[in-house]
Amino acid sequence: MEEAVAPMIHALRLLLGSGGQLGSRAGVACDSWRLGVEAHNVRDRKTVPASCEGYVGHCMLGGHYHRDSKLVIDQAISYIDSIKLSGNGKEVLVFDIDETTLSNLPYYATQGFGATPYNWMSFQEYARQASAPALPETKRLYNKLLSVGIKLVILTGRREVQRTATVTNLRRQGFSGWMTVLLKPADFKGSTVTFKSSERQKLLDAGYIIVGNIGDQWSDILGTPEGARTFKLPDPMYYIG
Amino acid sequence: MEEAVAPMIHALRLLLGSGGQLGSRAGVACDSWRLGVEAHNVRDRKTVPASCEGYVGHCMLGGHYHRDSKLVIDQAISYIDSIKLSGNGKEVLVFDIDETTLSNLPYYATQGFGATPYNWMSFQEYARQASAPALPETKRLYNKLLSVGIKLVILTGRREVQRTATVTNLRRQGFSGWMTVLLKPADFKGSTVTFKSSERQKLLDAGYIIVGNIGDQWSDILGTPEGARTFKLPDPMYYIG
Repeated sequence: MEEAVAPMIHALRLLLGSGGQLGSRAGVACDSWRLGVEAHNVRDRKTVPASCEGYVGHCMLGGHYHRDSKLVIDQAISYIDSIKLSGNGKEVLVFDIDETTLSNLPYYATQGFGATPYNWMSFQEYARQASAPALPETKRLYNKLLSVGIKLVILTGRREVQRTATVTNLRRQGFSGWMTVLLKPADFKGSTVTFKSSERQKLLDAGYIIVGNIGDQWSDILGTPEGARTFKLPDPMYYIG
Repeated sequence: MEEAVAPMIHALRLLLGSGGQLGSRAGVACDSWRLGVEAHNVRDRKTVPASCEGYVGHCMLGGHYHRDSKLVIDQAISYIDSIKLSGNGKEVLVFDIDETTLSNLPYYATQGFGATPYNWMSFQEYARQASAPALPETKRLYNKLLSVGIKLVILTGRREVQRTATVTNLRRQGFSGWMTVLLKPADFKGSTVTFKSSERQKLLDAGYIIVGNIGDQWSDILGTPEGARTFKLPDPMYYIG
């Protein structure tokens, strides 16, 4: 698969009229930048550095992103295998949606893999189509949890107005059997961390035990109560604070 | 520098009689494993996977580790430049020691870069020599803080019995002017997170403001109060829970 990637990126770059070399050392070292993103050292960024567009494209379309996701899911499945379930049906695992259950790569490939500033309108248009593919590694964890009787809570920064398209997209991609899908109320004004933390707190208040929490953004997994164990999926494309 | 690395690792491998290919795909994908370590997905590990010894060696001796550290320090310096100092002398930044201010790479290079299980006795012997070199990027941050009047607090999991060798080593490497060096009391029984959190709490109780906190382990920077901003330096070699 790797050998197919360079021409694809080259074609996209011609299409988009943008520059960027693979792993460019002019300016930021793209591999160090990506490590910094994943370790939460690089924060509040608006875009992928222009010189890293090719690097991130290669990462996303080549085997790198999939391989990195697989490692995270392998760790999550080992963790699930290691915990003792109470059998009372009160254990839940919290999943984010974008870049966690569903992949917006088809959209971001047209946006310089995050090198182009976020366009709210065009992303909404894309999301309405309910066509985002599943992330296969996450699906493996999802199905594992269904099989062992851990309940699935889907918790997203998407708004209530997007509920129909979101649920349609999840079902089309074979995600089902969840306990609940929680979206941001239309009038919610706070940060993602505030919203997601308060929803997790409500789960605890209702007697659930959050055995784990998985997302692609640090804002998915920071903020008390975090859950007994957190998993950070890779996302070099964009940042949500 | 990169071209000098492969023969060095090869020589070390012959010396140590150990295996391991660069970025081996037999077993774990070493680059994904490293990303998983830095994003706190891989936890409670005892050693570097045997198949990744060469990969980690290359990372540490080649430019990779230095480049990754530089990015973290660049972020930290940008952050320091962005904050408004009160000028009352109450702002502190907390530094870890091992793999943060001082590098134990000369020792770990003889231990398969972490692929060999931790040997408490031999590490103590090495630390007693007070010969660990400074991490140059951290030193840049350290000197920056001195120049702007932020106080330096050194907080380590090393024990009080190691104080003399530790302070000697820091001074020899040009670290000085700190406010305090805090080591674990001989009889401290709790975890590193517990120890470090409680020392940070004491700083707050004494009226200090922790503007930042930097370490190579997640256990350096997790646990309330974390500090206003945290920075995770890379460390593929070992894990402290």
